[in-house]
Amino acid sequence: MSAVLPSQAPDAQRRRRARAAVEGVARVTPVLRSEGLTDRFGAPVVLKAESLQRTGSFKIRGALAKLAALGEGAARGVVAGSAGNHARAVAEAARTTGIPASVFMPAGAPIAKIEACRRLGADVVLVDGPLENALAAAHDLADERGMAFLHPFDDADVVAGQGTIGEELLDQVPDMAQIVVPVGGGGLICGIATAVKAARPDVRIVGVRAALHGSVVAARESRSPVSSFGDGLWERSDAPTIADGISVKRPGDLTGPLVEALVDDVVAVDEDSIAEAMVLLLDRVNLVVEGAGAVGLAALLRELVPAPDAGSTVLLLSGGNVDTGLLAQIARRHESLVGRRLVLNALVPDRPGSLVRLLTGIADAGASVTEIQHVREGVDLHVGDTAVRLTLETRGRDHADQVIARVREQGFPVERSA
Amino acid sequence: MSAVLPSQAPDAQRRRRARAAVEGVARVTPVLRSEGLTDRFGAPVVLKAESLQRTGSFKIRGALAKLAALGEGAARGVVAGSAGNHARAVAEAARTTGIPASVFMPAGAPIAKIEACRRLGADVVLVDGPLENALAAAHDLADERGMAFLHPFDDADVVAGQGTIGEELLDQVPDMAQIVVPVGGGGLICGIATAVKAARPDVRIVGVRAALHGSVVAARESRSPVSSFGDGLWERSDAPTIADGISVKRPGDLTGPLVEALVDDVVAVDEDSIAEAMVLLLDRVNLVVEGAGAVGLAALLRELVPAPDAGSTVLLLSGGNVDTGLLAQIARRHESLVGRRLVLNALVPDRPGSLVRLLTGIADAGASVTEIQHVREGVDLHVGDTAVRLTLETRGRDHADQVIARVREQGFPVERSA
Repeated sequence: MSAVLPSQAPDAQRRRRARAAVEGVARVTPVLRSEGLTDRFGAPVVLKAESLQRTGSFKIRGALAKLAALGEGAARGVVAGSAGNHARAVAEAARTTGIPASVFMPAGAPIAKIEACRRLGADVVLVDGPLENALAAAHDLADERGMAFLHPFDDADVVAGQGTIGEELLDQVPDMAQIVVPVGGGGLICGIATAVKAARPDVRIVGVRAALHGSVVAARESRSPVSSFGDGLWERSDAPTIADGISVKRPGDLTGPLVEALVDDVVAVDEDSIAEAMVLLLDRVNLVVEGAGAVGLAALLRELVPAPDAGSTVLLLSGGNVDTGLLAQIARRHESLVGRRLVLNALVPDRPGSLVRLLTGIADAGASVTEIQHVREGVDLHVGDTAVRLTLETRGRDHADQVIARVREQGFPVERSA
Repeated sequence: MSAVLPSQAPDAQRRRRARAAVEGVARVTPVLRSEGLTDRFGAPVVLKAESLQRTGSFKIRGALAKLAALGEGAARGVVAGSAGNHARAVAEAARTTGIPASVFMPAGAPIAKIEACRRLGADVVLVDGPLENALAAAHDLADERGMAFLHPFDDADVVAGQGTIGEELLDQVPDMAQIVVPVGGGGLICGIATAVKAARPDVRIVGVRAALHGSVVAARESRSPVSSFGDGLWERSDAPTIADGISVKRPGDLTGPLVEALVDDVVAVDEDSIAEAMVLLLDRVNLVVEGAGAVGLAALLRELVPAPDAGSTVLLLSGGNVDTGLLAQIARRHESLVGRRLVLNALVPDRPGSLVRLLTGIADAGASVTEIQHVREGVDLHVGDTAVRLTLETRGRDHADQVIARVREQGFPVERSA
């Protein structure tokens, strides 16, 4: 059985060259059958942990394939513009190939990502303003010095490189029925779809994109605040998506028609679902997966992807580069959601010993105090009363209820804080 | 080449039975060559990601091996007492084998761990007081009902089960020269040492334990506060180690002599090193590894393990079950350490518009504000001044310095808060 691939798809020879370039440099990333997700989904679920790839994402595959295709054309070095995984991948691919790399990054990019590129030996140039400025500067340097500009996705060799994941999956998951893949520019899904459909046209390819970009635009037009993630994270005016790796607005000239031809369905997931998927992967599977890499699981959790009649569903975890700050925020938000972080406002008589009595009750109930704040202004207090805002760690919702009951028993008026 | 193993070591037949019990139920966990750690260590480093095992730790292997050895002896069910990974492993092994399991856990155990056992179908019994009470109750039930009590480590079949990791490593890392293994009760290291030394007596086996337990005892005797981890985490009176999975005080009757005979060296690591190793694995390798599982990397970072003349060093990442609360704490602590979280005290004239001016300066310098607190009491203030305590997110130490300089330029007296 063999499929007719669209003419734009990388041909067999290009795919062979990509495979040779990737082999032995990129990792064959592991697949994990997840019993917990299989129970929940009602059909076998397999995770392809590309988050454990060198440089933390699949992008190294495309970069290696492109350098191999360029051959002598890359002798003067390569240039890329990116704020994230593509920059890191180009730096690493150039290092292993022994050619110089210049990477243009927005000056406001996370310092951790800038440092990762520097550690890999790339010449990192910081450019003020948005990513577009960095891209323009990268193009200028490439033209001026005769260096090769590496596009992050709209390139047949890059697509063929990402497609090596599909070839690994054909070996690793012989019973696969569908693959759920994050979609940004489309390089990853087109590569996988080409490689898999060439051998197994019956395998369904489902794309998942982040829904936020659309909602940001809508919210800006209506002048209503954008806040689909809570905790203030997404209330900044530039409202980045938690899946920043796939915040590209649309596929490219090459990848666009390929997506049309090869992808069976594309669904969109909201920010909360993505955060929930990230926490589930952290907490249950012990993998750090970035927002863009977790959209496939988010789509499963929201029941946007139907279970096949038979065979496994592969979730492609495309990358794992998450700032520790965001990681802390997501983990903490999860603690609040499951009731393990409890914020209380209590009224305490303003005389020595009252606070000790309140805290003793809390300790007896088995909760730990992480923060205490006295509130004396803006609260409707009787003279002689003080309000105290307490942040507590509990063992979950039931325990939180017990703690509150205990504090009330001791005669302190108390209520949960929003 | 074949080694003479001590007589207490599980023999070849027992090891074969363990292998058969584990195969197809436990995962063959992936190994990852780490380029970053190899550069740092000066010799090849391979991570064995047992943190991606079913139930999140190696313990499932020993439990499966023991159930196979018991055969009909387990028909009435199995009993275990544990606050963590052993409980979960016994629950899962019993479920896949189709026999009932009762798990006794301390009532104060993290709700996430209790729920994980319940999800796996075990009969979970919560017992007030320390782990010893839960163990005693587990023993009582086993005696009363003729059920089998499963010891977490001091058992030849359990040791043989954990040893299946060693057999996987012989296949997966043919050039291995040494293996660095966490030591608690000793089941894991004895199993691996037996399996590996039987085939490759030249491979060095290094054990790593957490140093805190000793210091807790010392601190309690001297009545000084225990605080080797900062942030208040370890200031609780019962001062748990971050590596709670290996907080067993000493190896058992079986494992003690085996450690003596088979392990080449044992080193100890402090809490800060363990936290640092956990963050490095989260941030650079994209793996969630629990404290007990990260001690091997901590030993490498502290230069307690010498690089071999040739061959790879395997770090055994034994488990990945970390509470999201601890994860948040560790990630946040890292942000502070690398200067990405900055707490400032600033003096602000107490008139409308002053705070806006201060915040505008901070925004222009590119930092985000996560918390603002007015401090009016206990600070030596001029009349007409207000102190403000600001928590900011910056891009690192240099950026933090720039933010402070900018605020001072605008005429606000400011200093870093401890």
